[in-house]
Amino acid sequence: MASDLEIARAAELRPIAAVAARAGIPDAALEPYGKFKAKVSLDFVRAQAGAKQGALVLVTGINPTPAGEGKTTTTIGLGDALNAAGTRTMVCLREPSLGPCFGVKGGATGGGHAQVAPMEEINLHFTGDFHAITSANNLLSAMVDNHLYWGNEAGLDPRRVTWRRALDMNDRALRQIVASLGGVGNGSPREEGFDITVASEVMAVFCLARDLADLQARLGRMVVGARRDGTLVTARDIKADGAMAVLLRDALAPNLVQTLEGNPALVHGGPFANIAHGCNSLIATRLGLSLADVVVTEAGFGADLGGEKFCDIKARIGGIAPSVCVVVVTVRALKMHGGVAKSALGVEDVAAVGRGVVNLARHVENMGKFGVPVVVALNRFTSDTDAEIAAVQRAMETLGTEAVLCTHWSDGGAGAADLAQAVLARIGRGRFAPLYPDDLGLAEKIGVIAREIYRAGSVSFTHAAEVKLARFAQQGFAHLPVCIAKTQSSFSSDPTLLGAPEGHVLTVRDVRLAAGAGFVVAICGDIMTMPGLPRHPAAETIALDSDGLIQGLF
Amino acid sequence: MASDLEIARAAELRPIAAVAARAGIPDAALEPYGKFKAKVSLDFVRAQAGAKQGALVLVTGINPTPAGEGKTTTTIGLGDALNAAGTRTMVCLREPSLGPCFGVKGGATGGGHAQVAPMEEINLHFTGDFHAITSANNLLSAMVDNHLYWGNEAGLDPRRVTWRRALDMNDRALRQIVASLGGVGNGSPREEGFDITVASEVMAVFCLARDLADLQARLGRMVVGARRDGTLVTARDIKADGAMAVLLRDALAPNLVQTLEGNPALVHGGPFANIAHGCNSLIATRLGLSLADVVVTEAGFGADLGGEKFCDIKARIGGIAPSVCVVVVTVRALKMHGGVAKSALGVEDVAAVGRGVVNLARHVENMGKFGVPVVVALNRFTSDTDAEIAAVQRAMETLGTEAVLCTHWSDGGAGAADLAQAVLARIGRGRFAPLYPDDLGLAEKIGVIAREIYRAGSVSFTHAAEVKLARFAQQGFAHLPVCIAKTQSSFSSDPTLLGAPEGHVLTVRDVRLAAGAGFVVAICGDIMTMPGLPRHPAAETIALDSDGLIQGLF
Repeated sequence: MASDLEIARAAELRPIAAVAARAGIPDAALEPYGKFKAKVSLDFVRAQAGAKQGALVLVTGINPTPAGEGKTTTTIGLGDALNAAGTRTMVCLREPSLGPCFGVKGGATGGGHAQVAPMEEINLHFTGDFHAITSANNLLSAMVDNHLYWGNEAGLDPRRVTWRRALDMNDRALRQIVASLGGVGNGSPREEGFDITVASEVMAVFCLARDLADLQARLGRMVVGARRDGTLVTARDIKADGAMAVLLRDALAPNLVQTLEGNPALVHGGPFANIAHGCNSLIATRLGLSLADVVVTEAGFGADLGGEKFCDIKARIGGIAPSVCVVVVTVRALKMHGGVAKSALGVEDVAAVGRGVVNLARHVENMGKFGVPVVVALNRFTSDTDAEIAAVQRAMETLGTEAVLCTHWSDGGAGAADLAQAVLARIGRGRFAPLYPDDLGLAEKIGVIAREIYRAGSVSFTHAAEVKLARFAQQGFAHLPVCIAKTQSSFSSDPTLLGAPEGHVLTVRDVRLAAGAGFVVAICGDIMTMPGLPRHPAAETIALDSDGLIQGLF
Repeated sequence: MASDLEIARAAELRPIAAVAARAGIPDAALEPYGKFKAKVSLDFVRAQAGAKQGALVLVTGINPTPAGEGKTTTTIGLGDALNAAGTRTMVCLREPSLGPCFGVKGGATGGGHAQVAPMEEINLHFTGDFHAITSANNLLSAMVDNHLYWGNEAGLDPRRVTWRRALDMNDRALRQIVASLGGVGNGSPREEGFDITVASEVMAVFCLARDLADLQARLGRMVVGARRDGTLVTARDIKADGAMAVLLRDALAPNLVQTLEGNPALVHGGPFANIAHGCNSLIATRLGLSLADVVVTEAGFGADLGGEKFCDIKARIGGIAPSVCVVVVTVRALKMHGGVAKSALGVEDVAAVGRGVVNLARHVENMGKFGVPVVVALNRFTSDTDAEIAAVQRAMETLGTEAVLCTHWSDGGAGAADLAQAVLARIGRGRFAPLYPDDLGLAEKIGVIAREIYRAGSVSFTHAAEVKLARFAQQGFAHLPVCIAKTQSSFSSDPTLLGAPEGHVLTVRDVRLAAGAGFVVAICGDIMTMPGLPRHPAAETIALDSDGLIQGLF
């Protein structure tokens, strides 16, 4: 069987200007990056602001398991299928992070015959957006330390600096450091640390900004620390917002690439789905909606994390509304939710599917609470048996939902033709609304999500979290939506609780203000913001061959 | 008077494909980055290997002073003048570092009517090369710490890790840090530090590699530290070389831009000129030579540093030979070498010119030692008086050299027409040879440069430096050229000794092996590899205006 890379290399790509033209983007609006990638100018994006809006299809999933679900391939396959059915469709995806590429073998551009291309370039530096975000993040860090060094006019308490540096790299050695060692010329020693770039608030700001002016304003509102009296010091106070916006200016233009079937795809931005909201840039999504009849986009992790955040954060801030929600599932993943070990997934086990399907059912029910019709995409594997598939489909029928078999991985868009029809049939049938209003209290917002989505019995706040929430409200941030950082593996905050747990306690250990992004993060569990490399990282076997081709990356 | 930025924004640029076509680069060899920048494919570079070689003109300068000399503008102006005279000419320049942009206002793309464009993009992220170099550098760092974390198979002594992390940022807080704090999950605490990207050995390797295979091999030879028995551990031992080469693959293709007069310019790579060799990539220079009749290129700092290193390191490793050397000077700078304060430079002072011209004379004489005809470019300022100019020209006549007046800053190529004729008249008149042969000892090589170029009375080595030089020789590195890191402000290692000091002692405090780049660095003075920001960095006043235009950067 051909590998993803072999399939991608064998594909004949169209010149990006041809892809753009089909999508309604004129040549003058393109900034090409090589022959198969381009940025779409912000002037064009601005000019499209008044255009008729297409329908938005949100692709999300069950709680992820090591078996994999295939959200990205489904997004791409569905987009290709809709285009094949004559519906002008664009897919909107997140950009891959460079860091993980060198840890475990594999990219983030889909797979099989449902990929975006050119996959090697998208997975490596692409158009440099993440490097620009890293630079902007670290310029602010350098300016904060420089501010302390030269006398600290803003009165920032060096013990209360919360802004951290960032690198797009898996590097555990940088999680916790002491900086500014070496004496008076280098400053005063200070505890510090690096997050991976996708976990930076700059990434979240980048993905929620409506335009350049909004970007600069949001960057200015980001909090870098506090004074001794507890008042907040922002990037604006450090005078870093303008230079950061300059570093991000070109990056903010959305990236256009294509699927292996030559259909347009916007791949832009990519924040974490735990401490941030987990979806591609608002600018890309809105551009897509202004050009296409349908935009298919993906949210990170399961519907309890990425799906909920898409609706309560991105849609709210961006003034957009999903028309249909697709929940992706595999028989294998449901079997894991039903208690089967990964090594035993090849054996038929209809009972396990039945035990595990409660996870899917819960997500389907949850997404319905946003007023959006739901379709299940059953991403077929060759090991799935008819009885197992029937078990899933029956369970969904009981819920009044359709589970549509998909084979886009092996068949491309043709494998998602039925899904496309199911989606088209549901457009215009719902009425979207976020789960909670702006004017609910912060703790109450967390409570609504815990109750309605996680089905927790209660929410408990540490004293520190309570104090901070009260302070955020006092400082004028009570109107913000909340972004819950918890494990992606379970509805609860315990990663081992698979299936559909209920009545559990959600403990909010800490809360953080992301004043620039515009949400309050509630930390419910150990959240890793700087991954490490495994014992034998993929990087060890990656190399250029004698023709200059990349080996071992995918 | 129009600012550099105003002049640049007013220029009507040609589409980069048109610039390329005039330079002999076909469309198929171009990877466009926007409309006015492109990478030239390495396939095309390889195909050009057998082409007829043009003549190489090296632009260097006197010891720099705060008055400025204008090496970059002279390189660009001379290139434009040669093109105007009907000689197919390309200029080859270094890429600017992002770090300094936010410290002191100003870019590194020339000035006035002698600029390369688009200046804002070149000065900011350009085509992402420096970001790729930063990533490659830091991937190696992460893999080194990961190697220690998982059991240290290679036997690297954690006390003897010499490889440092890098950022393209002026950030003094990162000069000296302790990393891997926080307990067993993060590794063992270890002293560490960041250099600015241009000071990374990866940058030097990038700029000296002949092709991708040579790049990967050089990366593999880079030393990351030593074992307890003193044997060296390389990037190859850590298995990082292949993945680093993958990160650098696309970056290694040279960048094509244009001068304001629409002539082709290759802007690629940019290592420090103290701890590294200080000139643009070998690949770009060789590509230029294969396409143009004349290539004009610039070396960093004065002729004692960048000029010498161009001849003894880059030309030697790359198998290229300068045909003519241009030494750039201003009356103002000579007056500073003659003892005039910067604030008094506006006042005519022929005597001071006479005192300072010894610095120029020494550089002219020195460059002659490489067998290359020398022309002086006298970069005219409006405050220069006829008597001052005559003083310089007389002094040069005495040496048998011509000092040609240039006004390219205000007049573009037309202002360097005489310089172009003087250069053309000297092509083919010399025979280049480096200063010393490969098989001289390392200490002797340092001695030759100290005697012939710096005019030191003697060289003194610290005990540590002596021991290390002996060890390098024993380890098989005696054949490498040497790269002396000293102040750029003086022939000596004392930055306050202006003019033409002689008989001074050159003290070699330390030596370092750059086994991948292929030279041994001799440290003679305090060399800053991570700059800091000033009290009020330029970044504080940089911002986007309401049209999304950059303000305050230049």
